[in-house]
Amino acid sequence: MSNTFQRTDRAASQLRNLRITRNYTCHAEGSVLVEFGATKVLCTASVEESVPGFLRGKGSGWVTAEYGMLPRATNTRMAREAAKGKQSGRTQEIQRLIGRSLRAVTDMAALGERQITLDCDVLQADGGTRCASITGACVALHDALSTLVTGGKLASHPMRELVGAVSVGIVGGQPVLDLDYAEDSACDTDMNVVMTASGGIIEVQGTAEGAPFSRAELDTLLELAAAGIGDIVKAQQSALVTR
Amino acid sequence: MSNTFQRTDRAASQLRNLRITRNYTCHAEGSVLVEFGATKVLCTASVEESVPGFLRGKGSGWVTAEYGMLPRATNTRMAREAAKGKQSGRTQEIQRLIGRSLRAVTDMAALGERQITLDCDVLQADGGTRCASITGACVALHDALSTLVTGGKLASHPMRELVGAVSVGIVGGQPVLDLDYAEDSACDTDMNVVMTASGGIIEVQGTAEGAPFSRAELDTLLELAAAGIGDIVKAQQSALVTR
Amino acid sequence: MSNTFQRTDRAASQLRNLRITRNYTCHAEGSVLVEFGATKVLCTASVEESVPGFLRGKGSGWVTAEYGMLPRATNTRMAREAAKGKQSGRTQEIQRLIGRSLRAVTDMAALGERQITLDCDVLQADGGTRCASITGACVALHDALSTLVTGGKLASHPMRELVGAVSVGIVGGQPVLDLDYAEDSACDTDMNVVMTASGGIIEVQGTAEGAPFSRAELDTLLELAAAGIGDIVKAQQSALVTR
Amino acid sequence: MSNTFQRTDRAASQLRNLRITRNYTCHAEGSVLVEFGATKVLCTASVEESVPGFLRGKGSGWVTAEYGMLPRATNTRMAREAAKGKQSGRTQEIQRLIGRSLRAVTDMAALGERQITLDCDVLQADGGTRCASITGACVALHDALSTLVTGGKLASHPMRELVGAVSVGIVGGQPVLDLDYAEDSACDTDMNVVMTASGGIIEVQGTAEGAPFSRAELDTLLELAAAGIGDIVKAQQSALVTR
Amino acid sequence: MSNTFQRTDRAASQLRNLRITRNYTCHAEGSVLVEFGATKVLCTASVEESVPGFLRGKGSGWVTAEYGMLPRATNTRMAREAAKGKQSGRTQEIQRLIGRSLRAVTDMAALGERQITLDCDVLQADGGTRCASITGACVALHDALSTLVTGGKLASHPMRELVGAVSVGIVGGQPVLDLDYAEDSACDTDMNVVMTASGGIIEVQGTAEGAPFSRAELDTLLELAAAGIGDIVKAQQSALVTR
Amino acid sequence: MSNTFQRTDRAASQLRNLRITRNYTCHAEGSVLVEFGATKVLCTASVEESVPGFLRGKGSGWVTAEYGMLPRATNTRMAREAAKGKQSGRTQEIQRLIGRSLRAVTDMAALGERQITLDCDVLQADGGTRCASITGACVALHDALSTLVTGGKLASHPMRELVGAVSVGIVGGQPVLDLDYAEDSACDTDMNVVMTASGGIIEVQGTAEGAPFSRAELDTLLELAAAGIGDIVKAQQSALVTR
Repeated sequence: MSNTFQRTDRAASQLRNLRITRNYTCHAEGSVLVEFGATKVLCTASVEESVPGFLRGKGSGWVTAEYGMLPRATNTRMAREAAKGKQSGRTQEIQRLIGRSLRAVTDMAALGERQITLDCDVLQADGGTRCASITGACVALHDALSTLVTGGKLASHPMRELVGAVSVGIVGGQPVLDLDYAEDSACDTDMNVVMTASGGIIEVQGTAEGAPFSRAELDTLLELAAAGIGDIVKAQQSALVTR
Repeated sequence: MSNTFQRTDRAASQLRNLRITRNYTCHAEGSVLVEFGATKVLCTASVEESVPGFLRGKGSGWVTAEYGMLPRATNTRMAREAAKGKQSGRTQEIQRLIGRSLRAVTDMAALGERQITLDCDVLQADGGTRCASITGACVALHDALSTLVTGGKLASHPMRELVGAVSVGIVGGQPVLDLDYAEDSACDTDMNVVMTASGGIIEVQGTAEGAPFSRAELDTLLELAAAGIGDIVKAQQSALVTR
Repeated sequence: MSNTFQRTDRAASQLRNLRITRNYTCHAEGSVLVEFGATKVLCTASVEESVPGFLRGKGSGWVTAEYGMLPRATNTRMAREAAKGKQSGRTQEIQRLIGRSLRAVTDMAALGERQITLDCDVLQADGGTRCASITGACVALHDALSTLVTGGKLASHPMRELVGAVSVGIVGGQPVLDLDYAEDSACDTDMNVVMTASGGIIEVQGTAEGAPFSRAELDTLLELAAAGIGDIVKAQQSALVTR
Repeated sequence: MSNTFQRTDRAASQLRNLRITRNYTCHAEGSVLVEFGATKVLCTASVEESVPGFLRGKGSGWVTAEYGMLPRATNTRMAREAAKGKQSGRTQEIQRLIGRSLRAVTDMAALGERQITLDCDVLQADGGTRCASITGACVALHDALSTLVTGGKLASHPMRELVGAVSVGIVGGQPVLDLDYAEDSACDTDMNVVMTASGGIIEVQGTAEGAPFSRAELDTLLELAAAGIGDIVKAQQSALVTR
Repeated sequence: MSNTFQRTDRAASQLRNLRITRNYTCHAEGSVLVEFGATKVLCTASVEESVPGFLRGKGSGWVTAEYGMLPRATNTRMAREAAKGKQSGRTQEIQRLIGRSLRAVTDMAALGERQITLDCDVLQADGGTRCASITGACVALHDALSTLVTGGKLASHPMRELVGAVSVGIVGGQPVLDLDYAEDSACDTDMNVVMTASGGIIEVQGTAEGAPFSRAELDTLLELAAAGIGDIVKAQQSALVTR
Repeated sequence: MSNTFQRTDRAASQLRNLRITRNYTCHAEGSVLVEFGATKVLCTASVEESVPGFLRGKGSGWVTAEYGMLPRATNTRMAREAAKGKQSGRTQEIQRLIGRSLRAVTDMAALGERQITLDCDVLQADGGTRCASITGACVALHDALSTLVTGGKLASHPMRELVGAVSVGIVGGQPVLDLDYAEDSACDTDMNVVMTASGGIIEVQGTAEGAPFSRAELDTLLELAAAGIGDIVKAQQSALVTR
C-alpha cells in the first residue's frame, strides 16, 4: 500500500459497520459481541464479591480488564500466550488501557467492595481491536452493573456515562477514521482516542509510525475521533435500550 | 443432584442439539463452531508449510492441537492461563487427546511435510468440551486439508475417515449419553469415547468418580457411545456436503 | 520391531518379574520400591496434617500424587523438568491418574483433615512406569495410613481395598500383558487398566497408536488386564503381610 | 495533597534542574546519567553487529530499549523484577515507548545491519522517569552512533534530529510542566509528550486520572510541553558539544 | 543439640560407613550409588556426542552436573522443584560446585568434542549430600570415560586423577569429619573441601554459621579434611578395581 | 594474558583505589556507592517492619541480600535477568553469600522483628563485584541500623563489628590481592575471603580454576587476604566517622 492509498469503500470520516450483540454467551453478568467491520471481540463482565488486597476495607470497588486473541484471529496463526507462558508487552499495554478507560466512568464508591473483571477476547481481528474492546466492554460492564441494581445489591447504577473508543490515522496523506488492518499497516500516524458520551477526553495515544506529525495534524485527528465516538456512543445507547 | 437423578428433557440415549457451523471466522483454512446444546467451541485448523524438528526431512506431516477456555466460558470465572503463565494439567491432557485422535485418521505421508494446528477454544461450556472439540476439529481439519487439495498442493485428501467423540456416564444408576455439566457433576462413572465413522475405536477413557464400575456397566456404556458417535458422524457428513 | 513380533521370554498373559520392597528409604511414612522387570519406581507416601484450601473445615482428607523421572532413567538422557522450569503434559497426565486411582480406594472422611502426598520417582524405566507407580503407591499409602492407625490418630484404616494397575496391548497381532519398552514401542493398541482387589474398574485408558481397534480386541485386552491385576494384588498382599 | 495544591519552588512552566552527564560509565558505547531534579536515570547505548531475525538480510538496523528500576530507587522498596521472574506491564509499556521514540529519529537504512540497545535504569525516582529515559537515551544513542562514524563503520550519522520528552499535567486546576512524584500523585490529568528538535510530535499519551479533560485543557498542555521540550533539546545540544 | 554435643558412635576423625555401588542402574554409561551412612545419592554419567555452543569447533569437551533431591529424601517433605518451576539457589550452587570439581580433574582436550552430564539425585539425605555427590560422580564419570576408551573412541582415559569431597566442622567446640544432618544443624563452622588423590586442593568453602572462626581452627579443619579425603579416594579406587 | 603476567600498576599486596560514598541516593535508610578501582556497586539497605514467615513471632530479625548487574556494567552487554525471567545460578550464589556475611555480624535478637534487605547493584564491573558488594553493604547496613537507633526504635546498635571482603589469587605464579577483571581471567586459583574487623573468618571460598593448588599456596593467599581486609575495614571506619 503506497502513499497514494485511497479509501474507496466508505468515507474518510465514516465508521465501519458497527454491531453490538448483548447476551452473546450465557454465564457472564454482561456478555457482548462487538463488531467493527470484520473485527469481532467478545467482551464479558464478571462480578466478584471482593476486591484486590490494596482496596480491602476501604469501601471502594474496582474494575479491571484482561485481553487476549485467539491464535487464529489473525491472518497468520500467532502462538498462544498460555502456551508461551507469558503475555506480551502489547497485551499488557492494551488490558491496562481498557481497565483505565472503564474505571474513569465508574463510581467506585457507589460500586462498593466488589470487583468487575472485563475479559476482551478477539475472535477475529481486522484492526482496531483495542478500541472495539473498550466499546464492547462498556456495554458489558453496563449490563453487569444493571444486574446488581435489579438484584437489589446497589441503590443506583455506578456508571456515570458511556465511553467509546476509536482509532484515527493519516493514511496516504489523508486523515481517516476507524482504520482496518490494511490501513493501519499503511498509516504514518496512528492515534487511539477514548472519550465519554459528553465529549470528555479519557485517553489520547498518538504515535508517529514514520515521520513525526504536526500539531495541525493532531488537531484534525482529534476532531475526526470526537465525531466518530459520537456515532459509537449512539450505537451503544441503541443497543442498551433493546430488551 | 441425588441418586434419584432423572434426565427429563431428552432420552438417555439421545444427543443434545448438535450444530456444526463451518467458516465461522475468516482467516483460518478451516474454522468451525460446534455446539452440543449450550457447549460452544470454536475449532480452527491452521496450515503451516513446515514440520516440527523431529520430523524434518522424513516426508511426513503432523497434526497437533491446542485447547483453551475463555475465562468466562464457565459459570464462575476461571483465571486466564496466559495470565497465570502456565497451562493446567487438565488443559494439556485434553489437547494431547485431541491431537492423538485426529492424527489417527490422517495419512501423514499423504499430507507431506506440513503441520496442521487445531485450536479448540471454548466460548461457552456446559459439559463435554473435549468431545465437542474433537468433533468440531475433525470438520475444521477436513476443510483445511480440502484447501490443500483444491489448491493443487495435495493429490488426494489425507483424511482416511471422519472421527467423532462423545461422553457417556452412569447418572443416578442410569447409563446416559452426552452429559451436560449438571449430569457430569452428578455422575458416578464418566467415560469419553472416540470412534471413527466405520466404528473403529481410537480412544476409551473411563474413570470411576465414586465407586468402581463393573465390566457389565462398561459394556453398556460402550454400546451407548457407539450409537451416539454414529449420529455425530452423520451430522459431520451433513455439514460437509453443504456449500 | 515388525508385525511379526513374538514375545519369547514369557507367556503373553504373564507379568514381568514383580518385586515390592517396603521401607526402601527411611524418612517417609510409606516408602516402597516397586519393580516390574527392569522398571524401578520409588514410591513414598508423606502425611501432612492439613488439607488444600478447597477442603479446609469440611472434615475430609485428600490424597494427591506427583510423578518424576530421573534424567537417566531412560536409554537416552531426558532433560530434567526442574531445570526446564515446567512439567510436561505427560508428567501431569500421569500424576493426575495416580492421584485419582488412589483416591478411589480411600475413605476421605475416615482419613480426616490430613493430606497424603504420593511421590513416584522412576529410577529406571523399561515401560509401564505409570502402572508400576500406582501399584507401588498403593502399598506406600497403605503403610502411611497404618502409621496413623498404630499412632492412635485414626480409629480404622481408611483404605477400602487394594488397587493395582497394568498395561495391555496388541503387539504383532497378539494381545499381551505388561508390555516392556520394546513391546510398547511396537504395539498398535495400548491400554492401561486400574482395578481394585475385588475386580471393580477404576480407570480404563485405551489408545489406538496406529489403526483403530475393534470392540472384540478391547474385550480381549480387558480380560487379560483383569487376570494380571489379580496377580498384582496378590503380590501386594504378600508384601504387606511381611514384617 | 488537595485541590488547592500550588507549586511554589518554580514556575508552572519551568523544568526541574536538568543535568546531562556523558560517559558516566566506561564500557558502553554511549553512557549518560540524566537528572531531572531528584530523578536520576542511567542510560547506556550498546552496539551489536547483528539484527533481530525479522530484519536479517534486509540491510536495515534496529533500535530497541529496556527499562528497569533499582529496587530502592523509590521511597518504598519495590520487589526486584528479576527475582519475581517477570517484568510488569508498566515496565514493558515504558520500554516499548522509549524504543519507538528513538527509532522515530534514526535512519535505519543508514545504520545498516546492526542493533543498538538502550538500557535505561532508574537509580533514583521522583516522577517523570520515562521522559527522563527518552531524553537521556537520545544522548547516549547519539554518542554510540558517533563511535560508529568516527570508527569508519558509517559514512554519515544516522540520527536525523534530537528527541526530548516531558510530562505535563493539571494539578490543583493549574497546568504544570515536568511533574515531580508528589505532583504526579496529585494530578487529575497526566500527559507524556515526545517531540523532536524541530517540533514534530512523536508521541502524545494523555490520561485522565480522575475526571475526563476537555479539548481546551489538552491544547494548553500541548503548548506547555512544546516549550519545555525546546528547553530540553537545548540542554542536550549543550551536553553534546562538550568534549 | 547444645554446645556440649559429643559424637559417640565414631571417632571425630572417622568417616561414616562409605559404600560405592557401581552399575546401580542400567541405561547410563556410568551409574553409581554412593552412601555416606544414611545419605544415599544416585550419580549417573551420560555421554553426549556434542558440546554446548560456546565450545563448538574448538576440539574441547565439557563436563557439567545437575543435582536434585527426591521430595521425601528429607525428614519433612520438600516441594518438588519441577512442580515449583524453578531450581533453588542452593540447588544451583551445588550443581555448579559438582561440575567445577569434576572438570578440574578431566583433560578436556583428550575428551574431544563431547559432553558428559553428571546427574546427582539424592534418594535419602542425612547431611553431606554435595560431598557425596562429588565422590560418587567421580566414579560414575570414570566409568563413562572408560566406555569411551574401551569403545575405541578415545586413545587414553581423560581423567587425570580421582577427586573426593568431605565436610568438616566444629561441633560443640570439637573439630569433626563427615558431619551427619544432626551434627550439621548443631555446628558453628561448616566447611566443604574437595581434593584430588594426590592432595591438591580444588575447592575450599568454609562458612561461619554462628561466631567467626579463627585461622587456627581453619588449619585444623583442613588437616582433618585432607585425611578424610585420603580414605575416600581409597574407597573409590577399591570400587573401581572390582569387576 | 600468559603465565608471565606481571602486575605493574600497583604492588601485589595492594588494594585498588577504594572509595566509599555514603548517602549516594536519597530514599534508602542506607545508600552507599563503593568503588574498588573501576568496579562500582550501589549498595542500599532497606528497613521493613516485619520478618519472613519462618521467623514470625520469634522476636528475631533478619538480614537478606539481592544482587544484580546493569546489563552494560560489563564490557559486553549481558541480557537483563528481569527480561530473561530468572536469576542465574551465579547471581543467586552471590546474593546468598552477601546475606550470610552480613548476618554473621548482626545481632538478630537486638534487631527485633524487622528485616533489612541489602540491594547490591553493579553499575560498572571490573572484577571483585561480590567482595565490593559485601564491603559496601556493610556500611549501608550500618547506616540503616543507625537510623533505627537514632529514631529510638533500638536501644543499642545491632552490628557487632564491621565486615570486609576481598579476592586473592595466583596470577602468573604470583599471589596477588584484589584482582581486577583482566587478572581474574588469567588466574589459576581464585579465592574470596570475608573477615571481620577483629580478624575472624566468616567465609573462605577458594577454587582451582586450572591446576589444583597446594596447602602452602592456600596459606599464602589467606595471609594476603587478612592484610587486605585490614585496609578495607580502615576505609569503612573512616567513611563512617564522616558526617
